[in-house]
Amino acid sequence: MLPFADSPIKRNGKSLILAYDHGLEHGPADFKGMPETADPERTFELGTHDAVTAVAVQKGIAEAYYPSYEDDVNLLVKLNGTSNLWMGEPNQPVNCTVDYAVDIGAVGVGFTIYGGSNHEVEMFEEFREAQQSCRDYDIPMVMWSYPRGQGLKNDTAPDTIAYATRLALEIGADMVKVKYPGSPDAMSHAVNMAGKMPVVMSGGSKISDEEFLQTVSASLDAGAKGLAVGRNIWQRDNPIEMLDMLEQLIFEDASVEAALAHGGD
Amino acid sequence: MLPFADSPIKRNGKSLILAYDHGLEHGPADFKGMPETADPERTFELGTHDAVTAVAVQKGIAEAYYPSYEDDVNLLVKLNGTSNLWMGEPNQPVNCTVDYAVDIGAVGVGFTIYGGSNHEVEMFEEFREAQQSCRDYDIPMVMWSYPRGQGLKNDTAPDTIAYATRLALEIGADMVKVKYPGSPDAMSHAVNMAGKMPVVMSGGSKISDEEFLQTVSASLDAGAKGLAVGRNIWQRDNPIEMLDMLEQLIFEDASVEAALAHGGD
Amino acid sequence: MLPFADSPIKRNGKSLILAYDHGLEHGPADFKGMPETADPERTFELGTHDAVTAVAVQKGIAEAYYPSYEDDVNLLVKLNGTSNLWMGEPNQPVNCTVDYAVDIGAVGVGFTIYGGSNHEVEMFEEFREAQQSCRDYDIPMVMWSYPRGQGLKNDTAPDTIAYATRLALEIGADMVKVKYPGSPDAMSHAVNMAGKMPVVMSGGSKISDEEFLQTVSASLDAGAKGLAVGRNIWQRDNPIEMLDMLEQLIFEDASVEAALAHGGD
Amino acid sequence: MLPFADSPIKRNGKSLILAYDHGLEHGPADFKGMPETADPERTFELGTHDAVTAVAVQKGIAEAYYPSYEDDVNLLVKLNGTSNLWMGEPNQPVNCTVDYAVDIGAVGVGFTIYGGSNHEVEMFEEFREAQQSCRDYDIPMVMWSYPRGQGLKNDTAPDTIAYATRLALEIGADMVKVKYPGSPDAMSHAVNMAGKMPVVMSGGSKISDEEFLQTVSASLDAGAKGLAVGRNIWQRDNPIEMLDMLEQLIFEDASVEAALAHGGD
Amino acid sequence: MLPFADSPIKRNGKSLILAYDHGLEHGPADFKGMPETADPERTFELGTHDAVTAVAVQKGIAEAYYPSYEDDVNLLVKLNGTSNLWMGEPNQPVNCTVDYAVDIGAVGVGFTIYGGSNHEVEMFEEFREAQQSCRDYDIPMVMWSYPRGQGLKNDTAPDTIAYATRLALEIGADMVKVKYPGSPDAMSHAVNMAGKMPVVMSGGSKISDEEFLQTVSASLDAGAKGLAVGRNIWQRDNPIEMLDMLEQLIFEDASVEAALAHGGD
Repeated sequence: MLPFADSPIKRNGKSLILAYDHGLEHGPADFKGMPETADPERTFELGTHDAVTAVAVQKGIAEAYYPSYEDDVNLLVKLNGTSNLWMGEPNQPVNCTVDYAVDIGAVGVGFTIYGGSNHEVEMFEEFREAQQSCRDYDIPMVMWSYPRGQGLKNDTAPDTIAYATRLALEIGADMVKVKYPGSPDAMSHAVNMAGKMPVVMSGGSKISDEEFLQTVSASLDAGAKGLAVGRNIWQRDNPIEMLDMLEQLIFEDASVEAALAHGGD
Repeated sequence: MLPFADSPIKRNGKSLILAYDHGLEHGPADFKGMPETADPERTFELGTHDAVTAVAVQKGIAEAYYPSYEDDVNLLVKLNGTSNLWMGEPNQPVNCTVDYAVDIGAVGVGFTIYGGSNHEVEMFEEFREAQQSCRDYDIPMVMWSYPRGQGLKNDTAPDTIAYATRLALEIGADMVKVKYPGSPDAMSHAVNMAGKMPVVMSGGSKISDEEFLQTVSASLDAGAKGLAVGRNIWQRDNPIEMLDMLEQLIFEDASVEAALAHGGD
Repeated sequence: MLPFADSPIKRNGKSLILAYDHGLEHGPADFKGMPETADPERTFELGTHDAVTAVAVQKGIAEAYYPSYEDDVNLLVKLNGTSNLWMGEPNQPVNCTVDYAVDIGAVGVGFTIYGGSNHEVEMFEEFREAQQSCRDYDIPMVMWSYPRGQGLKNDTAPDTIAYATRLALEIGADMVKVKYPGSPDAMSHAVNMAGKMPVVMSGGSKISDEEFLQTVSASLDAGAKGLAVGRNIWQRDNPIEMLDMLEQLIFEDASVEAALAHGGD
Repeated sequence: MLPFADSPIKRNGKSLILAYDHGLEHGPADFKGMPETADPERTFELGTHDAVTAVAVQKGIAEAYYPSYEDDVNLLVKLNGTSNLWMGEPNQPVNCTVDYAVDIGAVGVGFTIYGGSNHEVEMFEEFREAQQSCRDYDIPMVMWSYPRGQGLKNDTAPDTIAYATRLALEIGADMVKVKYPGSPDAMSHAVNMAGKMPVVMSGGSKISDEEFLQTVSASLDAGAKGLAVGRNIWQRDNPIEMLDMLEQLIFEDASVEAALAHGGD
Repeated sequence: MLPFADSPIKRNGKSLILAYDHGLEHGPADFKGMPETADPERTFELGTHDAVTAVAVQKGIAEAYYPSYEDDVNLLVKLNGTSNLWMGEPNQPVNCTVDYAVDIGAVGVGFTIYGGSNHEVEMFEEFREAQQSCRDYDIPMVMWSYPRGQGLKNDTAPDTIAYATRLALEIGADMVKVKYPGSPDAMSHAVNMAGKMPVVMSGGSKISDEEFLQTVSASLDAGAKGLAVGRNIWQRDNPIEMLDMLEQLIFEDASVEAALAHGGD
């Protein structure tokens, strides 16, 4: 982990990363009932919202859609990713090199690690190569740290999420994205394990506005430095409202109540 | 996916790719009863038809036969491919590099991905290498997106084909070839998932003229940008007639009836 | 496949390749009862016969014995090869690079492919690397195309041999060596599948003079462009007589009867 | 093994390496009950103690925390490491190259080898690459030699530890870290097997002051050249006291009694 | 195989290679009862005996001990090697590159091949890389040819040893080390299969002076060009006496009786 004081994917030390790699990871199922959400332009448009510090997509989406948004959106290319169609121990292919991500405009990259998978050894080594390549370009490496595999019973247990943030610090991520471990104390523990490295909460599947904001707020109070969120933004009927509320919460230190009120504007 | 406005494998935004890698993929069985079809020259001759925007073959066929057709046919080299003699989870070796394909005249390349295979990780990484190499030459990468493997029950289910086109967009294909998912709605869904990236219908095994043209027409109506077809051309007694009809359908916006009438000329 | 009009491994479009890699592939068993056959010099001496267009050996044999014969024998280095001591799906290590083969005098190289083996993917990729390297040196790649493995019941069935020659054409061999598929018609079918690419018959285990010549003759009549033969030469008491007869058959268009008579000189 | 007379990781031929890679290897469990121990700064502060010849951490910890200590602490980057979350034969990914370790200030590197694991072949080859790279920078390679795997019943048996030190000498480590094999004689045997190469005792899990010092003293008497210790330092309430005592023992040739008395200052 | 007329590892066409990689291959067990044998210096001292044409050790031993002997001993670095602690099909990691072996003074290298192992393919390919690298430095490659694995019943059967020497010739070794196949005839057969390539007998576990000399003598009579021996030298109480006797036998054409008498000096 290097301190990226000036990285565009942070604003005042906080991040709101809008993630949109679900078409690869989950397939069209995530767009069901809202076909407009399948259009990457809609997400890039949301990415122009002031609250958003970066949009995270796979290489192919970036190549096709980012050129129209390069003045208004910070691009974070997710380097690895896979479909959910196959079986076996969790793993992800590397779909993009850091060199190529930078070529197409990335100011940061993302990399999933399934700690605890029987492919952990392979994934760590791929991570190493990408991480050291990031150093050449002076761009941050954000780790999606998702312990998973044969040896893991509960992938959001407090100890698991705390191990997840620590793994990221130890192997050299510059920021780590983890699932909410169920309580403010558990998140605080996970943040403590990450040392100087910023932790962002992973948005997860869509829940109600208030429930979501409460979770985000709890994470921030526990020391998280923001959010990497997908479905809780772009699956909403009014995603801009949610971005307005998150902006209050994350960047303006507003309470959940105040943020909710703001969203109702 | 990059927009290839000027790629020779498209004409007015549409493509008719004549595929002829069956000798490798299926073996001599596909030439049974019509021994003349085993001769690649016959297919390259068909490739000189105005309707054909590219001929897709393996490297060895291109080396041996393309030199006589380089003025009249656009070459698309299929980079990977395998025999059907072995068992196990679907996979394909890479038989040609992009560098070499360009050396022998390719203006585009093809790459099969078996999403859902337990070899998906390996295939995606080989795809990455080829795709990024295509960028150096500014030639398009056409993905044969054929979900297949232990985890897949039905490889032409609408959700599967929609996932197939999305995979291609996400990992950076410039055009995707998928099987017809059984209905215009399902094809429309698949096209929608592909965003800006053109989708072409895969021809499949030989069916009657009318049935085939109806399927092509339905795909075009659903937003497909053409066809990648093999046996439905070169297994016919009069393949030129079928190419005439497809030209009407794809490039002249003719109805199936009008195209059939044209074919009867 | 590239046309090698001027390659020294052909004479008037025909080839007689004397193969001598049995020490690796079968071990000393092939020399049993005739210990003098274990001496590579004996085979290189036979290679100086006018009928022989190339001698095919492994790298180690070439390094040790070819220097004395470089003026009189065309060297074809077999790039891969293995012992018969182990079990499992058929595969062969690559024992020599094309660069090194050329360094030690090769004017062509050989490469075994076990189509249908569960190692087909790996073997095809190793073939690609070697084949593309051949292009840099403008030397031909001869493929030993031997379908074999879990999925194959009969490795000399007509359909199998026809697939074997087609595989070679598709992936870019310049000449293919296949076993005799049992009948002239089957050989003709295999030759047809190979298109422009020359097919040579594989000699196999030793049989009687007449039976062997009949098979060779049938193959030539079916369109084969010669022979790659080992044991049917060097396991004979009078291998020169057999070479004389083959010279008549292959290069002088003699009948089996005429060739046999010639051998009796 | 090369003699590193002047390496900063030794003082007067002895080493006290403070190891702190437990956050990766064991996870937050090792920090339980003492949350302050999760902060790498605390360990780097301890690393400024005169007794400590180097601090051993993973790349990520070094990147984030070493810059503040580069004048006061010698950095040893542990090149490989893994979580304890997965199952299967022991193995470790390589998380850092030697090049990068040197870039961030390392004056030595560490590498775990699980001799006896079914991944021994792979680990030895990764070790080779790192070791030969160390030669380019003239920095020592310290091997964590921990026999482990299906074939091993007892990983601290005298014969196992003696084999562990010998492995390190044979494959080219410059120093070896092994567990205490249970008796002074066994440690002496292990030291004898290591030849010229210095052996350091591995600290292991926390035990009482006296018991720990007795073990260290026995190792030194048996010829060990110091200690690589983690939990027995940083899990203590007064780690500085323990470092004071170890300094007496290792560098001042004090008896355990004298060292204990010193610690009580 | 290349003829190395002038290689220092031969004298008058004969070799006596003193092998000392047992600390890696067998562990400290081989030094049991004679702890002084664990010290590599003792073996290097023996290597200064006139009879010894080279000392064969792993990289780590060479780095640490060879510098004091570079004027008096010819170094042969064994490139691969493994512990005996793990289970599974025989295999060996490559612990040293040819480049590095030459850097530290090697005038030849050694490489084990387990022909018949299910890892034969991998081992042959690693051998190829090392062998071709030897050509760049013009140093000989000695192959330890030890058929072993699931498919082998008897690793010293005459046919197995004859196959072992042939493998070495075919894949390009410059000298081969094989176990004694039980009889002079069998050794003669193995030597015959090796063609021009020199065969040396492997010493094996310690036996009586006379029995050992008889075996060496039988091998020499059968055409072997010397000996690669470890335990039958350095496990003896008076290894110099044995070297004196072997010098008589190998380089002075003495009989066993004469050699034994000489040893008694």
